[in-house]
Parts: sequence; C-alpha cells; structure tokens
Amino acid sequence: MESLKQQVFDANVALPAHRLVTFTWGNVSGIDRDRQLMVIKPSGVAYEQLRPEDMVVVDLDGNVVEGRYRPSSDTATHLVLYRRYPALGGIVHTHSTHATAWAQAGLTIPAFGTTHADYFSGDIPCTRALRREEVEGDYERETGRVIVETFTDRDPLHTPGVIVSQHGPFSWGSSPEEAVHNAVVLEEVAKMAWIACSVNPHLHPIDGYLMKKHFSRKHGADAYYGQK
Amino acid sequence: MESLKQQVFDANVALPAHRLVTFTWGNVSGIDRDRQLMVIKPSGVAYEQLRPEDMVVVDLDGNVVEGRYRPSSDTATHLVLYRRYPALGGIVHTHSTHATAWAQAGLTIPAFGTTHADYFSGDIPCTRALRREEVEGDYERETGRVIVETFTDRDPLHTPGVIVSQHGPFSWGSSPEEAVHNAVVLEEVAKMAWIACSVNPHLHPIDGYLMKKHFSRKHGADAYYGQK
Amino acid sequence: MESLKQQVFDANVALPAHRLVTFTWGNVSGIDRDRQLMVIKPSGVAYEQLRPEDMVVVDLDGNVVEGRYRPSSDTATHLVLYRRYPALGGIVHTHSTHATAWAQAGLTIPAFGTTHADYFSGDIPCTRALRREEVEGDYERETGRVIVETFTDRDPLHTPGVIVSQHGPFSWGSSPEEAVHNAVVLEEVAKMAWIACSVNPHLHPIDGYLMKKHFSRKHGADAYYGQK
Amino acid sequence: MESLKQQVFDANVALPAHRLVTFTWGNVSGIDRDRQLMVIKPSGVAYEQLRPEDMVVVDLDGNVVEGRYRPSSDTATHLVLYRRYPALGGIVHTHSTHATAWAQAGLTIPAFGTTHADYFSGDIPCTRALRREEVEGDYERETGRVIVETFTDRDPLHTPGVIVSQHGPFSWGSSPEEAVHNAVVLEEVAKMAWIACSVNPHLHPIDGYLMKKHFSRKHGADAYYGQK
Repeated sequence: MESLKQQVFDANVALPAHRLVTFTWGNVSGIDRDRQLMVIKPSGVAYEQLRPEDMVVVDLDGNVVEGRYRPSSDTATHLVLYRRYPALGGIVHTHSTHATAWAQAGLTIPAFGTTHADYFSGDIPCTRALRREEVEGDYERETGRVIVETFTDRDPLHTPGVIVSQHGPFSWGSSPEEAVHNAVVLEEVAKMAWIACSVNPHLHPIDGYLMKKHFSRKHGADAYYGQK
Repeated sequence: MESLKQQVFDANVALPAHRLVTFTWGNVSGIDRDRQLMVIKPSGVAYEQLRPEDMVVVDLDGNVVEGRYRPSSDTATHLVLYRRYPALGGIVHTHSTHATAWAQAGLTIPAFGTTHADYFSGDIPCTRALRREEVEGDYERETGRVIVETFTDRDPLHTPGVIVSQHGPFSWGSSPEEAVHNAVVLEEVAKMAWIACSVNPHLHPIDGYLMKKHFSRKHGADAYYGQK
Repeated sequence: MESLKQQVFDANVALPAHRLVTFTWGNVSGIDRDRQLMVIKPSGVAYEQLRPEDMVVVDLDGNVVEGRYRPSSDTATHLVLYRRYPALGGIVHTHSTHATAWAQAGLTIPAFGTTHADYFSGDIPCTRALRREEVEGDYERETGRVIVETFTDRDPLHTPGVIVSQHGPFSWGSSPEEAVHNAVVLEEVAKMAWIACSVNPHLHPIDGYLMKKHFSRKHGADAYYGQK
Repeated sequence: MESLKQQVFDANVALPAHRLVTFTWGNVSGIDRDRQLMVIKPSGVAYEQLRPEDMVVVDLDGNVVEGRYRPSSDTATHLVLYRRYPALGGIVHTHSTHATAWAQAGLTIPAFGTTHADYFSGDIPCTRALRREEVEGDYERETGRVIVETFTDRDPLHTPGVIVSQHGPFSWGSSPEEAVHNAVVLEEVAKMAWIACSVNPHLHPIDGYLMKKHFSRKHGADAYYGQK
C-alpha cells in the first residue's frame, strides 16, 4: 500500500501545482483492485501540510482500514464510481474555476475542437441536478449515482470526466496520475469552450469524423501520437 | 496585544500572497473583545514594507491608543461592524478584481453552486448605493451602516461577506485569518459566478436544500467536513 | 542626469514586473525641467538586457544628446505631452491587455466605482481615431496632439491616463515612478470595467459626489488617505 | 545540425516559459535549407525532460534521418509549409488558450489595433474546416494544404500565423525563435480581440493606412522601430 499511498499523495499535491484548487477544495484517490482497498486524501487537510503517510486507506464499503485521519467527505462518491467501473484506477474531484462555472451553468461542454477530442470522444456531460431527497439522503453516494445514471453505456475511459450540476467536475483515469492529467485537460477545455462561445455564440460541435480522428490518434490500437 | 498585532500583520500580508490586492488597496483588522481594542493596518503603507509593530491599535471610538502611524482610512467602517456584530473577530476589505466588478455592477451574487454554499448560506448581498449626504458626511461610518442596513437580521457568520455597491467587498470571520480565508472565497465565487452567467445568461440560484446541505457540511453541530 | 536615468530605468523594468508588457511593447520616460532634457528607453531593446546607462537623453526637440541607442519610436508623443503639460514628470506607454482592448473597442472607460475614482476624477477618455493624413504624416507627434485635443481643459494630473483609439494606453504622473503606478491602475480599472459591463450590460457611471469624495480622499489639500 | 538542434530545442522550451502550452500540446521545428533537412520536437515527450539531442531530424519527405524518437505527429503539416514557402525558417504549433478558442469559434481574427498590425499586415485568417475525406485521409498533410489554400497569394512573413478551424494556431518566421515570438503575439492578439469584441460587439477592423503604418514601422526597408 505504501506505493499507492505515495502515488495518491503525489497526485494530490499536483492539484495546487496545476492551479486546480483553492485551499482544500479537491481530492484524489487511487485503488488497489487486488486487495479491494482505496487510498484517498484526508478531509480538509491543507495541501502544504500533507504527507504521504497521511493518506487514508478504506475498504470498498468506506470503512477506514488504515490512517489516523478521516477520509475525504467525497469518499462515497469515489467508491460508487470504482465499484461500477472496473477500468478506473484513479479519481479526482476539484472545484477548478472554469469547469465549476460550467457546472453552475448546468450545461454539458460540447466538443468544440481537437483539444477536447484528443481526450474526450464526445461531449463532457453535465448531470441533472440532484433532487431534494437525494441531497437530504445519502448525498455523496447519490452524487456518484447521478454520474452513473448520466453515463448510461458510455465507456468511462473514452469520457474521462463529468460535470456534476451546480457542483463541479470529477475526472478519472487508469491511475491517480492520469486522473489528474484529465482534470487539467477538463479545466483547460472548459476555459476554451467559454471563450469560444463568447466569441461566437452560434457555435456547433465538431463533426464525428474529426472527433474520432483525434481521439484515435492518442488512444487505442491505431494511436500514433507519442513514442509507442 | 503583541499576539493580535502579529495575527493582524500575518493576515494583512496574506492579501497580496493570495493576489487579492494591488498596491495598498486592502486592509485587515482584528479585535480584542476583552480589552475593547481593535488592531488594524496603517493607511497607505506598502505591504512589502509592513512590519508587525506597524499595526495601529485603536479603541472602539477610533482613537489611536498605540502606534506611530495613522490607521486605515476605512477604520470607521470596521468599527461599526465590530460594535454591531459581537461574533466578529476579524474584518477584511479589498478591491479584489472580480468581487469589485460585481460591486461596480451593483449586483448581489446569487448562490449558483456548492462552492458558494460551502461558505455562504444564501446570496452575497450588494448594498444600495450611498446617498449624497452619506457620501459627503461621515462616509466611512455610513459605509458600515449601509452594510448593517443590508443585513437586517442575517447572521454575519452565515454570510461572511458583502459587496458595497460601486465600491468593493468586505468580508469577516471569527479571526483575522478566517476573514482573509473568506475574502479569498468571495473573490473566487465572484469569478465563477461571472463565468457561469456568461456561459448561461438564464441562470437561477440553487435550491435551498442544496444550500443548506453544503453549508451544514462545513458549519454547525452536524458538520462532517474536515477533521473534527 | 545619472539620477534621472536610474529613475527611468527603474520605472521601465517595473513594467514587466507588473505584467504590463509583452516583449518590448512599452516605454517610460522622465523629464528634467531645469535642463529641458528628457530621458527615455531605447527603442526595441529587451527589458532583461536593459541597463541604466542604456537610457537615451534627448532635448525637447527630440535630438539625441546622450546615449548610444536610438530613443523609443514613441519619443515624439512623449515630447508633445511634456511641452503641453508642465506638471508632468514621467510618462508611460504600454500595450497592457485590458486597456488595449478598450482602445481597440474605441471606447472611453466610464467611472464605475471607487477604485477608478481614487485615481481618475472622471472617465478615462478614448481619443478619436487618427485620420489618414495624420497617420501618414508625423504619426507619433499626431498621437500626442490627439491626446491634447481630447483633454481640452482637463487637468492631466486629475486624469492621469488616456486611451488612444485603436492603439493603447498612455499614462503619466509627477515622476516616472508615479506614471508606472498609474499605468498599473489603468490596466486594473480597465479589467474591472470589462467584467462589470459583462455582468451588468446596463451599467451607469457613479455619481459626481462619490467620484469627488474618493478622488479628494487621496489627492489635494483635504486628502486623508496615507501617512501625511 | 547541432546548432539547429539547439535552436529548435531552445524554441521548444520557450513555449511553456511563455505559457503557450499545457503538457506536450505544442511543437517547434526549424529547417536547414542547404541540406534540405528539418529538425522537430519528438512526439509526446514532456518539455521538462527534453534535451537538445532528443530533437528529431527528418528529410523533406518526412523520413527520419537522425534521432531515436518518433517526430511530432504534426510533422507532415510543417513539411507542407516549408516546401511551399521558401522564406520560412521556423514553424510553431500550439493549443494556446485564446488562439485555440478563436479556432473553435471558426473565426478569422480581424485587425482591431496596432498591436496586431505591428506583426500581421491584415487579419489572421481562419481556414475552412477540413472535410471528412481530408480528416480520414492524410490528415496532417491536409492540415498543411488547407493553410496553403487559405493563404492564396499572401506573403507568409506578412501574415506570420493562421488559425486552423476547430483545431488551433500555427505560426512561423525566418527562424524557430522568431516563430515562437509570433506565437506569443498571436495568443496575445487573440486575447485582446476577444475582450475588445466583448466590450464593443459592433467593432470594425482598423483602416488600411493605420495597418500599413504600423507594419512598416517594424518591417521592410522603411522600418524605424528598434536599433537598426
């Protein structure tokens, strides 16, 4: 677990380095699928004071297995996603400025260009708003469930992020590091989409063939971007 | 008083570190309720030259009790708020960019999402514009009074900040440090609200149950965010 | 002259420190009224390579009196302003982002709040566009003349900056240092005004009594901001 | 080739220094016209790990002549431009935020002011969107071809950049260093144009005589900006 705790720690401190969080407004987790354990940031601890050994280990029901801190208040959301999507190795939640603004606007981010399509093979969906009984009930778990409801049969690694309405972004990947990478992309894509809409309010998403071309340049069997 | 002067000093120099001020456009104060004394930044002294011993001590009528400098020109505003609200331990005034833009727009910042609701249990109100006789009279005191008038029976720790129309934000908390924390939040929330409105001009505030859920996650007897 | 060259050098390197310039897109000058000499940045020399001894000294007709470089291409504009306004001790020209955007928009920046009124006792005027014969003639001198034409009988120290239509901002003060201070203010005020208009498109300037109050808090016989 | 590899390396690492790239979203190339060889960044290698000896040398048909890495996935686009325009010595591609937003908006950036005209003697054109068969065919080569199609008989050194619709900016110059310089200008001009349009939606481009004046201040036989 020490290796995963280090990875999760590194991914957490990368959030302020990428200017994705103010104060403690974010968290990263990672999962050990063999041992069925999740490692996550402790709740409300400042990034500048965080140490690898402060990471909290929980089982997939959310019981703390190791660590002297309480886990992130968003733990239940992470667990819903890990249980539903076996491909996920890391999950990130932030309140990054532009992605959160789209969440507040309650709008899906359309694919307006290749920067988007290099990572997301389609739009970045915005969930519906949670209902009163969901908010007043098991709120963090319902947040996970509304993401699953929104995704229907999407492949989560082909759409490695989501906007939770009125709340903010979640992103993920095959590792904590990749999840942070996708959080950076989501924020930058959200910023570009805002400016593009401002410059041209009558904007349409790109065509499917351009989307497919760019996504497959970077992902899958025919990828030819990068060194392998 | 040395401890409070150090706290107020630390809080003042945190303002430029958080990019909330240009030049000397901001000030933080703290109060010693037992001794009925307020400590505040001296007027117009550059942050990079400020030292803890430069903080000015005034009584609650505004008379300088200790210090070789003149206190902030906004001293009277701070005093009105401390006298009216016994719960306040620290107050901040800045001209931070986005909060000031909302002040210039003369508009209340609606609660558009959970980032807002984590700190403010409702909108961030904008005062009415001051009238000619108020501006030409005891201006800084009237600025405090119009804030009090705007708040009516709001709990100031449930709405730890305000937008003074055509002027800029004030925020506060139970200590100078917490007041600065809330000044950072107010600026970030103001920025997000601007972008959200730009992306979706037909935006409505969030429902009361989501507001209540998030505010009470972080505040009050049932709080479960953080480590206690 | 060595002292003025040092002042002008310090003011020039303050421009990139305040993020007001990209590459070499800016210049500061200062004047020695007794000796009737102006000191200005050399044209097109990178800020990171600039040294105090590189400053160019010219007489008020623009002849180089000292220095191995050619003076800024905007020299003639500076000279028109110094000759017309005896109170000016320093002048700055930049292409700072938001002030230049207002110049491109061809619009005067209205006084929307106290941040503006603390430094400018009225709007920040935008000149008319230069005519073909002015552009094709003595262009830089005509740029100075259209500023003078725009100011009519304004006191330049009460309006320490201007927007030249389709071009960018000029600002000034009683010294090179103060001129840079006002360039920072102009850029920040331009940014705030853009955001305020975006948030509330039906915005009106502040009333004269609030303008007067704030300007006179900082300037003139009754000023009470700062330490004397 | 070692000198050109160093130049291309220096130009590549200047991209993150100028905040033009996120992760590996950019590349710079240079050409040795005598030897008919192009040097370009390897594909997908992080800037912080890049070394001069990692630059890849290819012939003008795109065959790797030297280097252990695969060249940038955009290699074919660069080659089309070098073959068509003998004056080009360096080419840059980025996904810089504001220029990419204009690309997503599918709009040409009009010349709204002198900052633009100092470098671009006319608008910064946006290509048409690529057609399905172009995207699914030899995509990167078609990207070069649509730029050439857009330029018709423009002089590429008088318009040292372009917006590829739905994708992002390319810029160039007589050297890799100058190409990066123009990439910085294009991004800043794109940002200013966005804000100017936001402040004044009814904006028109500047007149030809102002365009010509500013471009010729900096370029050509009559240039008088700078030191020679």
